[in-house]
Amino acid sequence: MTRSLADIAQALNVPAPAGAAAVNIAGLAMLTEAGETHLSFLGDKRYLPEFNATRAAAVIVQRKVPLPPDTRTPVLLVDDADLATARIATLFAPPVPRPAPGVDPAARVHPSATLGEHAAVGFNCFVGARARLGARTILHPGVYVGDDTTLGDDCEIFPNVTIRERCTVGHRVIVHANTAIGSDGFGYRWDGSKHAKIPQIGAVAIEDDVEIGSCSCVDRAKFGVTRVGRDTKIDNLVQVAHNVVLGPHCLLAGQSGVAGSAKLGAGVMLGGQCAVRDHATMGDGSMLAACSGLLDTAEPKQIVSGIPAIPHRQALREQAALPHLPELRTEVRKLHAELEELRKSLGK
Amino acid sequence: MTRSLADIAQALNVPAPAGAAAVNIAGLAMLTEAGETHLSFLGDKRYLPEFNATRAAAVIVQRKVPLPPDTRTPVLLVDDADLATARIATLFAPPVPRPAPGVDPAARVHPSATLGEHAAVGFNCFVGARARLGARTILHPGVYVGDDTTLGDDCEIFPNVTIRERCTVGHRVIVHANTAIGSDGFGYRWDGSKHAKIPQIGAVAIEDDVEIGSCSCVDRAKFGVTRVGRDTKIDNLVQVAHNVVLGPHCLLAGQSGVAGSAKLGAGVMLGGQCAVRDHATMGDGSMLAACSGLLDTAEPKQIVSGIPAIPHRQALREQAALPHLPELRTEVRKLHAELEELRKSLGK
Amino acid sequence: MTRSLADIAQALNVPAPAGAAAVNIAGLAMLTEAGETHLSFLGDKRYLPEFNATRAAAVIVQRKVPLPPDTRTPVLLVDDADLATARIATLFAPPVPRPAPGVDPAARVHPSATLGEHAAVGFNCFVGARARLGARTILHPGVYVGDDTTLGDDCEIFPNVTIRERCTVGHRVIVHANTAIGSDGFGYRWDGSKHAKIPQIGAVAIEDDVEIGSCSCVDRAKFGVTRVGRDTKIDNLVQVAHNVVLGPHCLLAGQSGVAGSAKLGAGVMLGGQCAVRDHATMGDGSMLAACSGLLDTAEPKQIVSGIPAIPHRQALREQAALPHLPELRTEVRKLHAELEELRKSLGK
Repeated sequence: MTRSLADIAQALNVPAPAGAAAVNIAGLAMLTEAGETHLSFLGDKRYLPEFNATRAAAVIVQRKVPLPPDTRTPVLLVDDADLATARIATLFAPPVPRPAPGVDPAARVHPSATLGEHAAVGFNCFVGARARLGARTILHPGVYVGDDTTLGDDCEIFPNVTIRERCTVGHRVIVHANTAIGSDGFGYRWDGSKHAKIPQIGAVAIEDDVEIGSCSCVDRAKFGVTRVGRDTKIDNLVQVAHNVVLGPHCLLAGQSGVAGSAKLGAGVMLGGQCAVRDHATMGDGSMLAACSGLLDTAEPKQIVSGIPAIPHRQALREQAALPHLPELRTEVRKLHAELEELRKSLGK
Repeated sequence: MTRSLADIAQALNVPAPAGAAAVNIAGLAMLTEAGETHLSFLGDKRYLPEFNATRAAAVIVQRKVPLPPDTRTPVLLVDDADLATARIATLFAPPVPRPAPGVDPAARVHPSATLGEHAAVGFNCFVGARARLGARTILHPGVYVGDDTTLGDDCEIFPNVTIRERCTVGHRVIVHANTAIGSDGFGYRWDGSKHAKIPQIGAVAIEDDVEIGSCSCVDRAKFGVTRVGRDTKIDNLVQVAHNVVLGPHCLLAGQSGVAGSAKLGAGVMLGGQCAVRDHATMGDGSMLAACSGLLDTAEPKQIVSGIPAIPHRQALREQAALPHLPELRTEVRKLHAELEELRKSLGK
Repeated sequence: MTRSLADIAQALNVPAPAGAAAVNIAGLAMLTEAGETHLSFLGDKRYLPEFNATRAAAVIVQRKVPLPPDTRTPVLLVDDADLATARIATLFAPPVPRPAPGVDPAARVHPSATLGEHAAVGFNCFVGARARLGARTILHPGVYVGDDTTLGDDCEIFPNVTIRERCTVGHRVIVHANTAIGSDGFGYRWDGSKHAKIPQIGAVAIEDDVEIGSCSCVDRAKFGVTRVGRDTKIDNLVQVAHNVVLGPHCLLAGQSGVAGSAKLGAGVMLGGQCAVRDHATMGDGSMLAACSGLLDTAEPKQIVSGIPAIPHRQALREQAALPHLPELRTEVRKLHAELEELRKSLGK
């Protein structure tokens, strides 16, 4: 599965280096790890030393990076090296092994369930009553799809995922291995002697183009739905609690958590291990830095950080001041003493 | 599946509004989302604007909320709107799809295992040697129950849960999808050249009325048992390490973690993403606020917060002072200069 | 399954107490829980009261602990009570129930896959094309092993684990229930209208003697591999992102997370709920304390803590000073007033 450098240049719509038709590329690699059949990439001048030493057959280079005049490695100049690399990676991506279209003989599909054209239900999958899978949607082995749950077209659900009953999943949604969607939200009321369970009678609605990582949880709503907006991407081990509303185009990094009924606008970003409190709101384009905890509100486009989260600039100022706190105590004590001394010397 | 408003009033043991027998309710909804066949609820005067604008057929209202005198929406006055709503939700809860009583032909149940009356072992479940399931206990598809593990009556174990060997689960226990119970605790000893594994030969004991969320872990003990007390509720993605003892009626919110041998008393509450250090203790009714880390001890009924956790009031005081730290540095510098100047002007 | 105290002394290579041949030990227990057929252990003088009150048949005692002169409980004196206890625990460890060697009739093994001698593929496992399992490697029920993935000898993979295609797992590797290995890394590029997925075409390489807990995630690399070094031990609910390199002998405690392309050297330790930022590096033997977040670099052997992480001693100094911050503000205000007063009294 090699491609000529000329083909790659064409795929990126950039001029091909001299002799590119004769250069065969077998794959992508980091500058330091690339061999003579690899294409590599350079997006920042910090990595010029690695670029100068690379054995790569050719390198995708961000146009603004100043190359040494004597560069001999063939380069493909692009506006965005990351995006170009991502595009080329697609060319070299080995095919993901997938169950064949149709229903595996070891799967259990309820007679009332409906499957779109070329949908694939893998080994040991369970598909409940009245469930619907769109065209070309793929369930890898061991997936559970509950009664009345619908998946759109071109979805891919990886092994051992659980999607419980009455959930709605859009088109082109990817869910990675061992994730749980539609479990009961965490809701109880103390009834005087024990925690009475509040029934979670709602569901989950996942819109088009969403991707959810492994071992993540999206709980069903108390009533109504927990919503994951279009094109929102969720990493591994993320908690999305009941009645949360995530807008479109959000990014939730690993191990972040959004508590009950919180609302995130469009394009919100959560860093790793963030927490958003129940009923908190985050405006469009706002961002919560990694390891932070938001108690109430982030304004649109605002960057907040810390526990509890405050405007990021202010958090940085406090952080910068904190190391001086011990010396500050000493100074204040000294000032006290000096003032005392001065007073004494003046007989006051 | 509609119910008359009169029936609902009766279920709550409150007076029915006029004409309630003729009002049919199809379900519950938030004030802003409710339509003409929905029942909604109002628990706080903050939501009076939503109440005034709601299209709901009727609203459950917390008695203490001052309603406008011209309210036309039929209301059901209750002492605790949340609890009342939870009760009514039960009436409207769609049935959870469950495997039929008996053993699914695609399940594997060891001949020496015993099943109580009406127990249900779903598609592709595995039940090991000498395992016991109580009456009406349900295993959803893909559940693993190891040898010698016992589950009491009326348990419900959701898809793809793993409960390993020699564990004990009480009555009415719910475990949500993709959770792992009884995995080895994390224990090693450096033997001079590598980490020697400390065998984890204990087990897990889960008492009655416990509920555990999705993708959570309760590890088996080094020896003895890791214990989850009666009526304790555990959210998603929670870690309960080996030899932990959780008292009865605890609430552990999402992504919290309790390290080895820590002991939590009765009714302890952990906020989301909390950490409790190994061998730490928390007294009855104590509480660790979200995103906090407890190093040693929380006294009974004490609320602690921060990393490391300190009494919550003190943490709030420090938090309130922190934004003033940068200006404090400036002030101290200024004081210094002024004192210096004064001294100079006095010739000291 | 009892053992004589004499046998146990011999296994530890220490002198047997008088009459040890006639003392039968049935198992290990904590000092406070031990009965007359239990062996217990004492590693620290803090637990002398429990030792004095124990009913244990005998106790493994760390040599340096000063025992009361009238001790009657038979003791086994050792240099390292924890290590000795771990060794003895192995003697009493009940056997883990395992699928029998060979392929369970309910498993699906691709004809092109190869299995080493005495390898065991349990109920409902899936093993893909060209996958290889080493000798005596065990797949518990419901495990998924993707195409072209190889596992070495003597591995044990617990129920419902997913290991996706093209991954490499060494010898004697243990993976606990419900963990996901080889899922796509979290990588997108904004293409002007949506998050374009960056194909994750690399894989995961797990070296010999690694152990990974439950509900943890090790993502496949963008390209190249995500690497988990020899003898590294990973707890539950841990995130290891794409292109991370973990050195040998690392310990990652529960709910910690390592973001993309971070590099950890040999013997690095992460406390519970730690976060390591993408591209950060940690030198050999460095340590990140629990609940901390590392932004950039930890030097070899350095202990760092806090969010963001700083040298641990400095973090402790700041922590110690923080409670004085509110009073410091008061003091500075007072100094101001006093200085003002002094000036006034001097007519300055």
